[in-house]
Amino acid sequence: MNIERIINVANGEAEADLVLCNAEVFNVFTKEMIHADVAIVDGIIAGVGQYSDRRAKEVVDLKGAFLVPGFINAHCHVESSMVVPEIYCQEELRHGVTTLITDPHEIANVLGLDGILYMLRASENVPVNYFVQLPSCVPATCFEHAGATLEAEDLLTLKNYPRVLGLGEMMNYPGVLSTDQLVIKKLEAFQDRIIDGHAPGLTGRNLQAYASSGICTDHESSTSSEALEKLRAGIAVLVRQGSASRNLKTIISGVLEAQVDTRNLAFCTDDKHLSDIRREGTIRQNLKMAVELGLDALTALQIATWNAAKIYKLSNIGAVAPGYKADLVILKNLSDFNISAVYKDGCLMVKEGQLLHQIPNSFAGGAICNTVNLPTVEESDLMLPDWDCLPVIRIHAGEITTSKEWVKKADVSDRIADGYLRKVVVLERHHATGNIGVGLMAGYGLNHGAVATTVAHDSHNLIVVGDNDKDILFAMQVIQSMKGGYCIVKDGKEIGSLPLRVGGLMSDVPTEEFLLALDDMLKKAADLGVSSGIDPFITLSFIALPVIPSIRLTDCGMFDVDHFCMFENDSEKER
Amino acid sequence: MNIERIINVANGEAEADLVLCNAEVFNVFTKEMIHADVAIVDGIIAGVGQYSDRRAKEVVDLKGAFLVPGFINAHCHVESSMVVPEIYCQEELRHGVTTLITDPHEIANVLGLDGILYMLRASENVPVNYFVQLPSCVPATCFEHAGATLEAEDLLTLKNYPRVLGLGEMMNYPGVLSTDQLVIKKLEAFQDRIIDGHAPGLTGRNLQAYASSGICTDHESSTSSEALEKLRAGIAVLVRQGSASRNLKTIISGVLEAQVDTRNLAFCTDDKHLSDIRREGTIRQNLKMAVELGLDALTALQIATWNAAKIYKLSNIGAVAPGYKADLVILKNLSDFNISAVYKDGCLMVKEGQLLHQIPNSFAGGAICNTVNLPTVEESDLMLPDWDCLPVIRIHAGEITTSKEWVKKADVSDRIADGYLRKVVVLERHHATGNIGVGLMAGYGLNHGAVATTVAHDSHNLIVVGDNDKDILFAMQVIQSMKGGYCIVKDGKEIGSLPLRVGGLMSDVPTEEFLLALDDMLKKAADLGVSSGIDPFITLSFIALPVIPSIRLTDCGMFDVDHFCMFENDSEKER
Repeated sequence: MNIERIINVANGEAEADLVLCNAEVFNVFTKEMIHADVAIVDGIIAGVGQYSDRRAKEVVDLKGAFLVPGFINAHCHVESSMVVPEIYCQEELRHGVTTLITDPHEIANVLGLDGILYMLRASENVPVNYFVQLPSCVPATCFEHAGATLEAEDLLTLKNYPRVLGLGEMMNYPGVLSTDQLVIKKLEAFQDRIIDGHAPGLTGRNLQAYASSGICTDHESSTSSEALEKLRAGIAVLVRQGSASRNLKTIISGVLEAQVDTRNLAFCTDDKHLSDIRREGTIRQNLKMAVELGLDALTALQIATWNAAKIYKLSNIGAVAPGYKADLVILKNLSDFNISAVYKDGCLMVKEGQLLHQIPNSFAGGAICNTVNLPTVEESDLMLPDWDCLPVIRIHAGEITTSKEWVKKADVSDRIADGYLRKVVVLERHHATGNIGVGLMAGYGLNHGAVATTVAHDSHNLIVVGDNDKDILFAMQVIQSMKGGYCIVKDGKEIGSLPLRVGGLMSDVPTEEFLLALDDMLKKAADLGVSSGIDPFITLSFIALPVIPSIRLTDCGMFDVDHFCMFENDSEKER
Repeated sequence: MNIERIINVANGEAEADLVLCNAEVFNVFTKEMIHADVAIVDGIIAGVGQYSDRRAKEVVDLKGAFLVPGFINAHCHVESSMVVPEIYCQEELRHGVTTLITDPHEIANVLGLDGILYMLRASENVPVNYFVQLPSCVPATCFEHAGATLEAEDLLTLKNYPRVLGLGEMMNYPGVLSTDQLVIKKLEAFQDRIIDGHAPGLTGRNLQAYASSGICTDHESSTSSEALEKLRAGIAVLVRQGSASRNLKTIISGVLEAQVDTRNLAFCTDDKHLSDIRREGTIRQNLKMAVELGLDALTALQIATWNAAKIYKLSNIGAVAPGYKADLVILKNLSDFNISAVYKDGCLMVKEGQLLHQIPNSFAGGAICNTVNLPTVEESDLMLPDWDCLPVIRIHAGEITTSKEWVKKADVSDRIADGYLRKVVVLERHHATGNIGVGLMAGYGLNHGAVATTVAHDSHNLIVVGDNDKDILFAMQVIQSMKGGYCIVKDGKEIGSLPLRVGGLMSDVPTEEFLLALDDMLKKAADLGVSSGIDPFITLSFIALPVIPSIRLTDCGMFDVDHFCMFENDSEKER
């Protein structure tokens, strides 16, 4: 940053690279719209005021359009989009997001520090300010085997890496409350940084204890009283509107009703799929919904921009003001927040929804594309536990929580034959340890064949569901040969496959191509009888996550979330 | 900070050091008063909520009193109080200030880095969070000789010293606007830190240029439009209410009228004398006045606390919330903000205006108490310039600006004899260089004798005013022998003296003793005929400051502020 040149342009004495004239400029500091020009040089805003009479390489007359700071997505998981950072950022940028804060928790579960480093490197040249919070909970629990384990010492090696802000969401809130030594070490290591929280439903003294440890954000509020209590505890509330978790309406309504200060609110998506982003954007959608609920547009814009920058102590981001990055969005209105153009570092990147410059793809290769390591598995490995009575994972349309059912071992064959039950297998897929869990699932549908995925929160082992062992084994072979992704097989034939070669989680093909391939897979799964209302892959990807009620399957076996322990023989009688 | 213990206390599972029960707790985040208890351990707030039923070493029932965060004085010069940091902090603390941000600009002009280090060390154990901004303009101008010169490289040696936040007020705004290389180097060195501004009256593109350089605060607004323009440029406005400069009424009225967001406002004093602080406090007075002007009390409290913490990116300060420092003020009401008690780090420090614990004085010694180094001066050195016509510094009651008059050389003796003129001398006092400026002053009064001070903004040379050369020379001897301070002499006798042995700027005697001695000096000066409405010492201390209109005297000679150059022979004819 050449301060001299910026000063000279601001002064009106040197030529600007670009002057955006005649705009209604949103001032985040005073919460006003002010008619002005904006002079830009070297990607930095030099001045806001009267610049239309000054020299500039380029002058754009905005004809009174709204000029606002680029939006900030305060918390997202890029991997959840199933595309690499370069492609993800294209989609965010198209919808006005110029800054994002992401926790590469998923790839860290696959490859540890190397996975985080891949994300940092892949995002080095993207036209989005891409900040990283280091994953605090890898693996998520001790009832499964992830590809890596990250302790405080590991995280410290990346603490001072450029663009690393702090510690990612501390999901292990029981560990915080019980002062688990490994958790405390991580918190201690990041006391001078931003520590994100993840504490659904935490309240009262437990919430105070959680906040007292230095955790200062949370994106898990699902009721307005929860959001208000967190705000009052000094925790910034990141208002989430993702693909699955949609809390914006509840929180914004609660904030409006309580009439509290909004400055410790920011917007985020957490997990949002690429198709949803493509359709409606991320923060743009949060803005639109918030205003529909009655929040005034200027307050909503503060939440979408400067608030997040202040919460994360980001300098020079989130405002249209001298010295700030020229990350700008031109809006058509303040109701649906449709976007005419997006500037990043003073460069016009998006016009009427079209990306004007291709973002260079760093082309992933090496270890990051070689993360599926399966052992030899035989039919004898797919045997159900030899218990009289077996627990069943009952899934429901439109939900990721499951409920518990029981079936007598003697009845299993019949219930698979009549289509009510399917066998589900979780196989450790990082180090070919042979760890395998075998269980039963109801509600999935699937007439015949097997469906498999290497996206499986949070350890991202291989999950296969099927009505017969041969197809389950064949699906494993298909997954191994394409090094991760989704597949559908039937009678030893590959019906469809979607490679996710980057970590077994992400694709690096262009958005359109990826979305077409994904649609094709969804259609094939439906054709094969996967129940309507069940996403054949996303629902499956949560089957192994042992922190969501009520019953899960990990590579260690069937897990009882309600009692937070593995099922054993006779579990049924005790519970 | 022992996170485990704090978590356990917050949880209600371990014994708190202190529980403050039954309070109306101000929540800075939501801007609400909430009835609650506050549990404290190790000087940290563990939890806010229901703690009266928990174990605690001490429980205090606040009986519904208001409990608010300790106040933050966002910009002050400790030296201007004329007492050392230990004593200054006592007075701030008595009035509820638990955090201050100070620019040791005065002592830096005397002793450079050693002066700054003295202030840092002296404040190491004070019960106030004492943060330092490194002085950016030493010396203030090139038309005088200070005790030291500080360049970017010098400042960088202290950048990472604990409690150093950033770069102090960049008074050299012409240097910023003209991209003076030495100024640019300093700005570049602190781009990743908070840079304070000082830009009275700057507006339009010049203000944009100033802000574009990374400067992000200013405390010099004297009109509401100036304050609003600075806010809109992204510059935090520090609302000043000091002894001389009193801008609060104007700024707060303007903000109320414009109805803009208040979150980029903080309160400060800049320069406030010990006697004023003793009488009315600092930020407490700002609060009281703001509320009298119609600002709602809770917004005023945000400005006095969390706002400043956010502007300066201070963590764990400025809120009553878990994990924050237990720096707390108990208020009797929300109108005059009278204080019942002040807690610092969870320890009761002030009760009903009484300081309960003496603050240890680090007892200054060595170089810091040996800063007056005068050369041998004789009557022949006190000759006025041999010009036909001489400029006169005309001072006015209640103002620090001066106006220009002219007197014929031939008339000088008569006008001194009739009491209209007095001779004024500025002698470089740091390195005995012998640099001396001799001039004339009108409006000071003083029947007979001489008055001297080593407090002389910003270079802090020795200023002596008198009606005869013998007394002027004798005053110099008195100052030398007591190593700095104020003195009054007449006919070769010492009428009164107030030693300021620390840097020639500060006293280290207790407040009461100091204030009595100062009163005595003021009385003696009045007895000697110093004009009423003129502070005999403070007015004198601004006579050598070449940035305040219209005419000054430095150790280089008479200075024309309006034309920003030294007077020369024939200056009168040209102007």
